[in-house]
Amino acid sequence: MTDAATNMRLKLPIVCFILQIILIILFGVLVQYDHDTDAKEWHNKNQSDYDNDFYYRYPSFQDVHVMIFIGFGFLMTFLQRYGFSSVGFNFLIAAFSLQWATLMQGFFHGMHGGKIHIGVESMINADFCTGAVLISFGAVLGKTSPVQLLIMAIFEVTLFAVNEFVLLSALGAKDAGGSMTIHTFGAYFGLMVTRVLYRPNLNKSKHRNSSVYHSDLFAMIGTIYLWMFWPSFNSAVTAHGDDQHRTAMNTYYSLAACTLSTYGMSALTAHDGKLDMVHIQNAALAGGVAAGTAGEMMLTPYGSMIVGFLAGIISVLGFKYLSPILEDKLKIQDTCGVHNLHGMPGVLGAIVGAVTAAVASTDVYGKGMGDVFPDVASGQIEASYQGVRQAISLAVTLGIALGGGLFVGFILKLPVFGAPSDTICYEDSIYWEVPGDEEGHEEQLTAVNTAETEKLNS
Amino acid sequence: MTDAATNMRLKLPIVCFILQIILIILFGVLVQYDHDTDAKEWHNKNQSDYDNDFYYRYPSFQDVHVMIFIGFGFLMTFLQRYGFSSVGFNFLIAAFSLQWATLMQGFFHGMHGGKIHIGVESMINADFCTGAVLISFGAVLGKTSPVQLLIMAIFEVTLFAVNEFVLLSALGAKDAGGSMTIHTFGAYFGLMVTRVLYRPNLNKSKHRNSSVYHSDLFAMIGTIYLWMFWPSFNSAVTAHGDDQHRTAMNTYYSLAACTLSTYGMSALTAHDGKLDMVHIQNAALAGGVAAGTAGEMMLTPYGSMIVGFLAGIISVLGFKYLSPILEDKLKIQDTCGVHNLHGMPGVLGAIVGAVTAAVASTDVYGKGMGDVFPDVASGQIEASYQGVRQAISLAVTLGIALGGGLFVGFILKLPVFGAPSDTICYEDSIYWEVPGDEEGHEEQLTAVNTAETEKLNS
Amino acid sequence: MTDAATNMRLKLPIVCFILQIILIILFGVLVQYDHDTDAKEWHNKNQSDYDNDFYYRYPSFQDVHVMIFIGFGFLMTFLQRYGFSSVGFNFLIAAFSLQWATLMQGFFHGMHGGKIHIGVESMINADFCTGAVLISFGAVLGKTSPVQLLIMAIFEVTLFAVNEFVLLSALGAKDAGGSMTIHTFGAYFGLMVTRVLYRPNLNKSKHRNSSVYHSDLFAMIGTIYLWMFWPSFNSAVTAHGDDQHRTAMNTYYSLAACTLSTYGMSALTAHDGKLDMVHIQNAALAGGVAAGTAGEMMLTPYGSMIVGFLAGIISVLGFKYLSPILEDKLKIQDTCGVHNLHGMPGVLGAIVGAVTAAVASTDVYGKGMGDVFPDVASGQIEASYQGVRQAISLAVTLGIALGGGLFVGFILKLPVFGAPSDTICYEDSIYWEVPGDEEGHEEQLTAVNTAETEKLNS
Repeated sequence: MTDAATNMRLKLPIVCFILQIILIILFGVLVQYDHDTDAKEWHNKNQSDYDNDFYYRYPSFQDVHVMIFIGFGFLMTFLQRYGFSSVGFNFLIAAFSLQWATLMQGFFHGMHGGKIHIGVESMINADFCTGAVLISFGAVLGKTSPVQLLIMAIFEVTLFAVNEFVLLSALGAKDAGGSMTIHTFGAYFGLMVTRVLYRPNLNKSKHRNSSVYHSDLFAMIGTIYLWMFWPSFNSAVTAHGDDQHRTAMNTYYSLAACTLSTYGMSALTAHDGKLDMVHIQNAALAGGVAAGTAGEMMLTPYGSMIVGFLAGIISVLGFKYLSPILEDKLKIQDTCGVHNLHGMPGVLGAIVGAVTAAVASTDVYGKGMGDVFPDVASGQIEASYQGVRQAISLAVTLGIALGGGLFVGFILKLPVFGAPSDTICYEDSIYWEVPGDEEGHEEQLTAVNTAETEKLNS
Repeated sequence: MTDAATNMRLKLPIVCFILQIILIILFGVLVQYDHDTDAKEWHNKNQSDYDNDFYYRYPSFQDVHVMIFIGFGFLMTFLQRYGFSSVGFNFLIAAFSLQWATLMQGFFHGMHGGKIHIGVESMINADFCTGAVLISFGAVLGKTSPVQLLIMAIFEVTLFAVNEFVLLSALGAKDAGGSMTIHTFGAYFGLMVTRVLYRPNLNKSKHRNSSVYHSDLFAMIGTIYLWMFWPSFNSAVTAHGDDQHRTAMNTYYSLAACTLSTYGMSALTAHDGKLDMVHIQNAALAGGVAAGTAGEMMLTPYGSMIVGFLAGIISVLGFKYLSPILEDKLKIQDTCGVHNLHGMPGVLGAIVGAVTAAVASTDVYGKGMGDVFPDVASGQIEASYQGVRQAISLAVTLGIALGGGLFVGFILKLPVFGAPSDTICYEDSIYWEVPGDEEGHEEQLTAVNTAETEKLNS
Repeated sequence: MTDAATNMRLKLPIVCFILQIILIILFGVLVQYDHDTDAKEWHNKNQSDYDNDFYYRYPSFQDVHVMIFIGFGFLMTFLQRYGFSSVGFNFLIAAFSLQWATLMQGFFHGMHGGKIHIGVESMINADFCTGAVLISFGAVLGKTSPVQLLIMAIFEVTLFAVNEFVLLSALGAKDAGGSMTIHTFGAYFGLMVTRVLYRPNLNKSKHRNSSVYHSDLFAMIGTIYLWMFWPSFNSAVTAHGDDQHRTAMNTYYSLAACTLSTYGMSALTAHDGKLDMVHIQNAALAGGVAAGTAGEMMLTPYGSMIVGFLAGIISVLGFKYLSPILEDKLKIQDTCGVHNLHGMPGVLGAIVGAVTAAVASTDVYGKGMGDVFPDVASGQIEASYQGVRQAISLAVTLGIALGGGLFVGFILKLPVFGAPSDTICYEDSIYWEVPGDEEGHEEQLTAVNTAETEKLNS
């Protein structure tokens, strides 16, 4: 199991230390406390401590934080021998990405007099950007080294910030829960990366690309946390007041409806009328993705339920019928099926958002129009044009994601980052000291690995 | 394992789709955003966005949400081969129940001009109602199909809303944490259902009606989350201010005291002085149940601790001595022992609530009396009569729960819902695609199942 | 497996019941609702219910609560056959400690007219004190009976309250996140206890003092929860407004930087360039410990990252090089490596706090100086002297922790508390009814235990 190519003894420490030291230097030069976190600034104004934004965003932040580290991390533990890497690499690249995202997002939309001002809202946005990277991680899960993942994160965070800036600032689109900026972007970026990294002989690792009983239960921890906290995710950075409240509630009903359609479709399509854990773990979440853009709008509760209902159906159909086609015909090996959970539901969410925006009226929104569509409220544009902005944003996102993924995929193909060979994908013991389990698995693994090493040496 | 009777290929999709479509239609016709979630309504008044009820209820809601989906879901994973169903059916019936509860509860106490108005408080109440259904699920765990569970949820949610209306609106009782409405109701309803569904040959599945090492650890995730967030549960819908604060703190001390009495009783009663995981997983939570009614009252910290202390003792005694009697003599097969965790402690909580209400005085409550006992504060009734109201409420709850359970039990007995046969209860592979585990369990299961199928065919 | 010495049938119930009854009596005599939880007191003043401290502390409390019960509890489940005890004893001693801490801390700094006033802030402080006990538990994990642990908790909570009083009230030091009061105190107290309880023949249980695959995944649940909620921990009791906000953010960046240095160092120092789960589970948290004192100060984001970066490095180095020395030369058997996670990072945090305090200036803090350093703001002392106070506090903490641990260690050595013998440490089945696992482990265990018992009897 001591394979020079995948040995991380020097590669990983060098990358980690260099990145962290660069981050510290850039933070030292560029980053400052914002008005709500700086002792002097905050006390300069005569305001109640209870009005600090901390109290109105931090609970949402913590829910988002749990989704990023527990939700994404454990969702990917479904693989039988890749639990350490799923949780562990998720942890590593998220810890890097949130720092790097603070800089990149601050550079594009947080600069004040040459300095990036940070507080709880920037922390939420950094976690959001991290979410996109973790979605892409899901597409390449089991086939990449931690160094590759960190390199991917460097580029993806940067492109995420560019895309986010184009959508929210340049185009004036709305996307509070990130159907486009996070889910569509993360999914299609990752799918393009995994396309470029196509492994024709991946079936040699096929026996490890599946779950065991307890690994599926660990994955359900991730699923349920994502499901429960998605209302907080979609509402975390909307305007205060009715907007946050409504967004959370719309998402709640979208997810509930999605769960019922997921169970129905799973029993309908799976073998012998039995439920398939892959569907439950993933498709039941599609309702949250699909409510990411329109959630803050006056989507109505039953509108939210329709969106969730459809999202669950297309997601299960994707897992059942589209994924095999993507793999066979388009050579896209999508380990976690991010196309079904984030890709298609993200596009659905973008379309729902465009339509909902286009039909917005003062009759429905009243004076609340200013919070949701400020340019419509100010009379600068018609609601229908806001819908056009949203549609253009989807196209831009797809373009940047696919183009970016293509570029980054080729960089990751360079044979210096310690990627595993086709025969030992989905295997923790390449990068981790793995203890035995209860039935002497380690011995078997050693045997496999010895055979592998011998083959490589011969 | 392809048994026509338990095959869900058509039954489950039909039920899921029909229910969800009915829900969408009813929501479309009946449900509207409330004042705090509607863009126009909220902005019509001149108020600070920071006063939106979202900021004063949503963190409690999320804690309750975690209890419903992680707490109840994982608590029931203690069975060795029923983890998928425990978490997965919990997920399904909760996602359905919270939507249906929104309608039923709204119909009884949320109508405004012919419309049901919803916001974070209705979301909490819907989750509460869902909790009662999940308690009943615990009584029939392992012996029911997902279609049976959905049918049960339809009726139970409806009866829950009726009982809640009678108690809180008609009788004027107080029950913020639901000792009566949630725990007593859910437990006795479920016990009656499982009584009607009595299986004389259930011992054929006895070898699967037990835990393994790691399934007990998964169950502890559920236990600890329920324990930690119970203060949020009991305080989630009380009046704002001192009431929420006091309720959370009373519950915190009740649970802590309950934990010590549970450990003491478990070592005292269990085999060889060793602790029994069943007691720790369940009885340590009884303190939360028992503080569900009186938690918002001026129960005092030491009063809360006495209540928790007693709840832990009766719960362990119930597991040790009463459950076997219920099963042998009364033919009540209570898989999770909900009588010990929710039934008896719920009744205890109702009695404690009645007594605490009866002794309430302006000396102790001051102007805060109006929040807790509005009719006493207004001079309409004496405190002692409030106690009588509480006692009557307990009797009403028991009546509706037992009567409703009897009725629903007979409906669920109809042989069309795909219930498992006595020999394959507590087994995931009837309703789920189950992967192998580390030691080739699947082969053994297949063998068992083939034998089973052959027997059925012969 | 029925060993009279470790049999808990009478010992544990007696200790649990006596302790709980004493607690109830003392609460009855001494404890009252505080202004924000008492119905009469709260309504006496003309204030908005929304100003109740519940809304500004309770979300932080719940995050801390999760760290105490899930975080610490599951972090220690890494041992292959000690998961029940890790989560279960953690649960028991935490439930006791938080009650006892309410009294001890109230006695030292919560008395009002002879009564201890309690509310959400005292609940957070009680959980904090409990954290110190659980850190010490980590040092003796697997080698102590639950009765020993409860006895340890009685003394440790008391000494914690004394030390906390000396630091915060007598010396005027600042330590909101408890680098000194919680981490340094808990670690060195526990290390001294385990030194006194030194077992020369512990290698007879060596084969159980390691992890298996799934136990490491359970432990990651604990790690990730501690990591995510540490910002809430450090900010839970700081002044409201910018202080809480800044503390949470400083901790967030400290932890992120710590994670990168931990991964780098782990790959650099571990076998064959592979990552070691022990490092990831523990050292990645050192950034939270090290930001415990200075987190509320104007540490700056990049300053926080430097602190976290260094904490990760020294923690991994401690696990790799110092722990073996401590065990071999100093006879300190530190099961969880609390010296590396809490001891050294706690001391680092104390030093960082002293330096940051010493350089505080009105230029940087403005009118916010009063929240962080009231004595400096009032002109009573110079900032440099505040630094001296902090340094003295570290010395006092180390003195009380080591002295207290020495004393308590000798008490725990009394052969009446049912400690396990050297051959059956790290083994659940001494104190728990343990079900079989999937491969008939129980039989093996029974065999081991029978052999053990025979040896004892011979």
